[in-house]
Amino acid sequence: MTIRKLFEPNSVAVVGASRDPKKLGHVIVKNLIEADFEGKIYPVNPETDEILDLKCYPSLDEAPKKTQLAVIVIPAKKVPSILKQCKENNVRNAIIISGGFSEFDEEGKELEEEVLEIAEEMGIRILGPNCQGINNTSNGLCATWPLVTKKGPLSIVTQSGTIAAALSHWAQEENIGIAKTAILGNKADIDEADIINYLAGDDETGVIALYLEGVEKGRKFLEAARKAAEEKPVVVLKGGKTELGAEAVKSHTQSYAGKYEIFESACRQEGIILVDSLTELYNVCKGIAKLPEPDGKNTIIVTSSGGSGILAVDAIEDLEINLIDLPEQSIERLEENLPQECILKNPLDLTGSATAETFDESIKILARYKDVQNMVIIVGDPISGIADILKERYERLPLIPVFIGMGKLGDKEKEKLRDSEIPVFSDPAIAMKVANSL
Amino acid sequence: MTIRKLFEPNSVAVVGASRDPKKLGHVIVKNLIEADFEGKIYPVNPETDEILDLKCYPSLDEAPKKTQLAVIVIPAKKVPSILKQCKENNVRNAIIISGGFSEFDEEGKELEEEVLEIAEEMGIRILGPNCQGINNTSNGLCATWPLVTKKGPLSIVTQSGTIAAALSHWAQEENIGIAKTAILGNKADIDEADIINYLAGDDETGVIALYLEGVEKGRKFLEAARKAAEEKPVVVLKGGKTELGAEAVKSHTQSYAGKYEIFESACRQEGIILVDSLTELYNVCKGIAKLPEPDGKNTIIVTSSGGSGILAVDAIEDLEINLIDLPEQSIERLEENLPQECILKNPLDLTGSATAETFDESIKILARYKDVQNMVIIVGDPISGIADILKERYERLPLIPVFIGMGKLGDKEKEKLRDSEIPVFSDPAIAMKVANSL
Repeated sequence: MTIRKLFEPNSVAVVGASRDPKKLGHVIVKNLIEADFEGKIYPVNPETDEILDLKCYPSLDEAPKKTQLAVIVIPAKKVPSILKQCKENNVRNAIIISGGFSEFDEEGKELEEEVLEIAEEMGIRILGPNCQGINNTSNGLCATWPLVTKKGPLSIVTQSGTIAAALSHWAQEENIGIAKTAILGNKADIDEADIINYLAGDDETGVIALYLEGVEKGRKFLEAARKAAEEKPVVVLKGGKTELGAEAVKSHTQSYAGKYEIFESACRQEGIILVDSLTELYNVCKGIAKLPEPDGKNTIIVTSSGGSGILAVDAIEDLEINLIDLPEQSIERLEENLPQECILKNPLDLTGSATAETFDESIKILARYKDVQNMVIIVGDPISGIADILKERYERLPLIPVFIGMGKLGDKEKEKLRDSEIPVFSDPAIAMKVANSL
Repeated sequence: MTIRKLFEPNSVAVVGASRDPKKLGHVIVKNLIEADFEGKIYPVNPETDEILDLKCYPSLDEAPKKTQLAVIVIPAKKVPSILKQCKENNVRNAIIISGGFSEFDEEGKELEEEVLEIAEEMGIRILGPNCQGINNTSNGLCATWPLVTKKGPLSIVTQSGTIAAALSHWAQEENIGIAKTAILGNKADIDEADIINYLAGDDETGVIALYLEGVEKGRKFLEAARKAAEEKPVVVLKGGKTELGAEAVKSHTQSYAGKYEIFESACRQEGIILVDSLTELYNVCKGIAKLPEPDGKNTIIVTSSGGSGILAVDAIEDLEINLIDLPEQSIERLEENLPQECILKNPLDLTGSATAETFDESIKILARYKDVQNMVIIVGDPISGIADILKERYERLPLIPVFIGMGKLGDKEKEKLRDSEIPVFSDPAIAMKVANSL
């Protein structure tokens, strides 16, 4: 049974909608309105007629029929009866935000089993319970929090609301943008594999970022991830990699983290990109989302900061990056066009006296050679006009810009690149990991 | 011969001062003025009478006698003659910004030897050549670029101008602040050990951040670092750790990077903290600069984000952090005072429904137990009022705040902490490295 309407409903009911701004039942209605949801919104609450200027229905039975998605934010014990109302209404997809299920206690576990049984019987697909909902920026379905509306190629699937919020917040701030977000919760029915299958076929999704704790159905996950990875990059951060971390996973989502080594080798085999930290997950996805795909791993570092160049070189030890020698014919041209203090090696060190022009000359000259498949451009200290140069060259070449040591001028140049949706990185080592994953 | 006047001169001459805003000889005079240098500034240039409203002297001979520091920004070949003028004037400390010495070619190398010989003969201590100067925020001696004026406990010693600029810029933006900065250049005379010796005795310096490529006088460095580390933390990022990186070091500063394993074990023996990336160097120093020193490594993680808690736990695998069980007596109190969905383990998971009050209760309860020496407080998703809570508790307890998944509200809370000079981290794994280094 497809889960397309989970992301693309023409109408959504919020069961447990509230007039109290502190309640999630209010926040979700508000976010749907503020994200300009394209379909109809039906708040459901027997105690009021109107929420945020929208007509409020006393029950799902009484809301317009064939509502395509129900978001449920009511106490756990009432969820089974709401699911029965879903059936009456003909709702086929439900997001159960409410907690108090298997993550909580034995009774909650039984309740979750009951909910799943009813849902299966009624033909309703369920996200959650104990989840943080869905966001689809293309139709304004922000059935989650916080409010994120900036459209972009990054889609997020996580077992942690905060990690999804962190990724979305950064992507919004840096003008990268989000396609879809799903925060899985207890995965009673819909799991990461179902979402991955959907995202694999979603034209707006350019890269899938996953934060996973336990993967209960390993084979189903690997199958979905493998298929998706044929279409677009899939990047995974795994929580519970270590023994202590695995114990914490057990407390958090009652999942079994499994042996990381096994997970790791299985993922690598299927072409899935693994990362080691939240910072890396974000930066790698940001790079993939916005940088052109290079023809290979042959990389030249062009830098105005010798030290940053060295840190970049140190970072490639465990990566597949191939730091090539400068093409022989390029050296003569570089000699002719660059000031004599420049160091004509890889890293190509334009030194502290670099200008936008010397960067431009270097990039132009090196770009002529087929062997040069990727350039990491490290701008150390602010350089006036560098943003325009990078913008001009960026369209046609795989350039990875790293800006460090900025003052106000540098921040302005960085801002210009962000406005043009060109990603900028701030740590040379991270930039090399990005280069490696493109 | 002491180098105190390098940082604390009552007068500074800028030889090669310029009216052209694009030239370093202009930027340095301007930065000294804008940083409100407490002493006298003497621009030196035979071709003009006035630079930035300051009287300009045709030569160092003609500038007021006993100038305590000369900053030299003229072509390399003219440097020897200027050093002779230093002698006339009785200058004892000189910063040679000019490049074109041993980093450049054989001729430059000879010139550098000549410069050193003259300096030794005349009793002049030299920083550089090919360096990026000195900053002392306490007297406004910003004889470098960019302009950084925010006072704070972080002192920086590097072989890379950009890395110093990056650290200063971040420290200024995040309200951490800088005590002293020295960017070493070719180290013909003054090297990292000399600066470390000075900083060890400098009351304004609370932590020393070093970025080093080659350490020519290993024993001198280790001796200085060991002594300094008895007074205050010394944190080192080493460039050229890998074979390829070491080659790049050779090109950049003509230094010999040496075997990292040997450097590493020597540093550890002397109580020096080693870090692996620029991001880590900054964050660890920021933490040390502003966080109280805990009594030990017994740590509890309090989190509103289960996933972030797990990433924090995964990060301690190679660290000395001791993730203790919640004190037995605390559990009863926590049970009484926290909502029942909270998970009373370490990490203490307050779940997504956490409020400023539940954080406050948890911190208050746990702080009563001596075994709890350090708390990492992970605020996932914005929580209204959290900054005030943390500010109140911060004075008395070692708390490491991590804010992730923020929206506008969260950014506002973060801003409040920054205004109070409380450091905030954005990656749980980095926060654990900080905890480990305190």
